[in-house]
Amino acid sequence: MSTGDTERGSERDYVQSLERGFAVLLAFDEEMTTPTLAELAAKTGLSRPAVRRLLLTLQRLGYVENHGTRWSLTPRVLTIGQHYTATNARIELAQPHLLRLAERTGESASLAELDEFDAVYVARVPVRRIMNINVAVGSRVPAHATSMGRVLLAWAGPARITRFLEEAPLRAHTSRTITDPAELRMALSEVREQGWSIVDGELEEGLLSASAPVRDRTGAVVAALASSTSAGRLAPERLREETVPLLVETATAISTELGWSPRTPPVVRDGFF
Amino acid sequence: MSTGDTERGSERDYVQSLERGFAVLLAFDEEMTTPTLAELAAKTGLSRPAVRRLLLTLQRLGYVENHGTRWSLTPRVLTIGQHYTATNARIELAQPHLLRLAERTGESASLAELDEFDAVYVARVPVRRIMNINVAVGSRVPAHATSMGRVLLAWAGPARITRFLEEAPLRAHTSRTITDPAELRMALSEVREQGWSIVDGELEEGLLSASAPVRDRTGAVVAALASSTSAGRLAPERLREETVPLLVETATAISTELGWSPRTPPVVRDGFF
Repeated sequence: MSTGDTERGSERDYVQSLERGFAVLLAFDEEMTTPTLAELAAKTGLSRPAVRRLLLTLQRLGYVENHGTRWSLTPRVLTIGQHYTATNARIELAQPHLLRLAERTGESASLAELDEFDAVYVARVPVRRIMNINVAVGSRVPAHATSMGRVLLAWAGPARITRFLEEAPLRAHTSRTITDPAELRMALSEVREQGWSIVDGELEEGLLSASAPVRDRTGAVVAALASSTSAGRLAPERLREETVPLLVETATAISTELGWSPRTPPVVRDGFF
Repeated sequence: MSTGDTERGSERDYVQSLERGFAVLLAFDEEMTTPTLAELAAKTGLSRPAVRRLLLTLQRLGYVENHGTRWSLTPRVLTIGQHYTATNARIELAQPHLLRLAERTGESASLAELDEFDAVYVARVPVRRIMNINVAVGSRVPAHATSMGRVLLAWAGPARITRFLEEAPLRAHTSRTITDPAELRMALSEVREQGWSIVDGELEEGLLSASAPVRDRTGAVVAALASSTSAGRLAPERLREETVPLLVETATAISTELGWSPRTPPVVRDGFF
């Protein structure tokens, strides 16, 4: 991010102040829930006067509020995200299927979509407290280390997969995480062949999840349906024998509602990054 | 919103382009899921060149994508909202309580906070499909016509209540909606006295909900805990006899985890608007 504070009367100014506004908004997180102006300036690399102007603008728009020297986000920030849900009918359409899946498995059911190197939770029916991962809608998890991410990547198309393998930080979250690009490529190929993914303890020790692809009427994989559990509650073999068939059945039911048919030729996406 | 498109080299430019960027982002909704540049210009009142610059910036930041002449939001928009959840520990802390409440009542459980004239869902455990209301986290419902909103308003403090009664559009969503400021003031007073709220069919015919206040360690009401059902499934009397005690018990348990104690003197908030 540019840290210059010069005001130019050009198109670049527009780009910059919007970019900077988001940078300030997103600087509020778990580690910095009620920052001061100075803390926000340090984190974003922007000058204090620039942060101050952006904060005052965000305050006028109702996204932040001021408590003495400290600032916090308001629930209006959540309503920004809701616009994504509102513009994607498939998320609401999937909801009753997620509920029924959660009832049948007794485990949390989630729907996720791909964003750059991450899978983003777009819908979720929680059933039990899932370890210590924060899994609110809008949460991001690294695609390479999760069953949702592997399903989304598997059908993302050869060019997208290659770009992912070249550019994504394939961090080892546990000793089991696949971090070798060639090995990950093989894992994705296996997911395509079998039609689902199971990932066991690659994001967090003891976290076990299975995912199946949701397709739209063009046949493109637009989301991953996932069921998550703890390795202590369910062995990977039981997840495969009992949960995977339910997952595939539910994902197919959602796909069918989205206009997909078993006769739709399979499509891979080579979308934006 | 200002519709001027002049570029001034002043502080006002910063304010305007950030405001305009949000205006473009929020113009994507149920009615306009994949708008063209012209449609976005018409809806926001901004010029086409201004909308184009903002869209290209939002695209570079990963919030929108382009499909020929049409634009759509990306799941990254959801992660903006997640920053609110991440900065408010009480939302995650409330989650197991919401799950248990939903299990005990067999109905959806929600947590909401006040934002201007609306109650915003900040957490939700869905159980059944609740009529035709879109109730994703981040959804907004008018405070005057919902049990969550009445609970949040009831303890918002006299100045805030007066301002709400003067400024909020007290729209009649059904024939039952309270739209008279004096009558609403009395309803809020009743909520304070009894310690909970039931609203029957004021937002939508047949929609029935009950709410109880969640307090923080200062005693301020920071959220409303709600249970929603359909009037066809449960009579208001049964909601009152069976659900309200569970709601009050659960809201008290959440408040206690937030550091509130029955000995904390009651506090009313006179927050920002």
